[in-house]
Amino acid sequence: MISRRVPEAVIRRLPKYYAKLCELEAQGVIRISSMQLSQKMGLNASQIRQDLNYFGGFGQQGYGYIVENLRENLGDILGLFKSRTMVIVGCGNIGCALANYSDFARCGFSIIKMFDKNKNLVGEKIGDIQVEDIDFLGEFLSKNKVDIGVIAVPKQCAQSIADIFIQKGVKGIWNFAPVDIEAKDTVIEDVRLNDSLFALNYKMINEIYD
Amino acid sequence: MISRRVPEAVIRRLPKYYAKLCELEAQGVIRISSMQLSQKMGLNASQIRQDLNYFGGFGQQGYGYIVENLRENLGDILGLFKSRTMVIVGCGNIGCALANYSDFARCGFSIIKMFDKNKNLVGEKIGDIQVEDIDFLGEFLSKNKVDIGVIAVPKQCAQSIADIFIQKGVKGIWNFAPVDIEAKDTVIEDVRLNDSLFALNYKMINEIYD
Repeated sequence: MISRRVPEAVIRRLPKYYAKLCELEAQGVIRISSMQLSQKMGLNASQIRQDLNYFGGFGQQGYGYIVENLRENLGDILGLFKSRTMVIVGCGNIGCALANYSDFARCGFSIIKMFDKNKNLVGEKIGDIQVEDIDFLGEFLSKNKVDIGVIAVPKQCAQSIADIFIQKGVKGIWNFAPVDIEAKDTVIEDVRLNDSLFALNYKMINEIYD
Repeated sequence: MISRRVPEAVIRRLPKYYAKLCELEAQGVIRISSMQLSQKMGLNASQIRQDLNYFGGFGQQGYGYIVENLRENLGDILGLFKSRTMVIVGCGNIGCALANYSDFARCGFSIIKMFDKNKNLVGEKIGDIQVEDIDFLGEFLSKNKVDIGVIAVPKQCAQSIADIFIQKGVKGIWNFAPVDIEAKDTVIEDVRLNDSLFALNYKMINEIYD
């Protein structure tokens, strides 16, 4: 069904549509027009229609979208609820914040193990997740199917952790270290807090309020 | 100089150009063409030229960009090194991760106080930052110039904290709670970890490796 390459900006908006539709569904909204949805999301209606058309449409002219259907369809497109497994390397504040964030599990992403180089943490639990010695990361990845590797270590160590993930066939790396990861045939998603803060500051200077 | 409204996607790329130019400058690179920069960033060269043209260009055809100049210009456009003050509300893992992240201070963003409702934390320090009782947030904002308010509390409390920021004239809110903040004439920058994880998953499913 997908004939054209979906632009990065559209991929970035999909989770936002999904979140908004979950919220609307929870509020008991059955049907919504692209115009109404656009007002709730600070986008314009034609943008929404254009974005959804990449995946085949879903709406009906003059009728709008069935909220539950569209939410389910977008969930499928995003691959949610498919039981993805994750491990987190690094038990600092970021690693712990992720381990304690229950929303991931609810969407099908299970954190099955954490790793740290601090031997005192080994065997401890963070939330419900057991901490293992970083030296056993490779062995663990050989024995267990892990879809997503989370890098929450200082930037000096990030590439060496990534190399282990890549070598063991982990297909996605969620990188919280402020450094570029070199990889081929592995999807890298960077979370750069600086980028977000700088964009906020730019908008403040230029008084961009949407 | 800025005559057209800068698209969101371009604003989002500015910090990435800035980071890459810092890296190149640290490596001793003096001059770079848009083609070379594009290869290092996984963008195409005409995109880069088009993005920078929103701000007046900076390059010279057939010569490229002087790395240091372009880095300085982008830093000015992003408003870096201007001494912005921030407070963080919420001393959980996210709040602590932000408090311990030294890169912000290096770019001119000083965290001057943290707030929490846990009375046991009041008076303690996280990194170098003192924790104050959340009940004094309003009073603190009346007495001190705070540019950016960081929300790192559970989603149920996020809007009430935002309301205090807005009422006291804080111009930017950096929101880590997974909920939409209602505001007018205040810039809201949301960090949604779910959005990032879902985008990663989408790219894994569709084998999008750049």
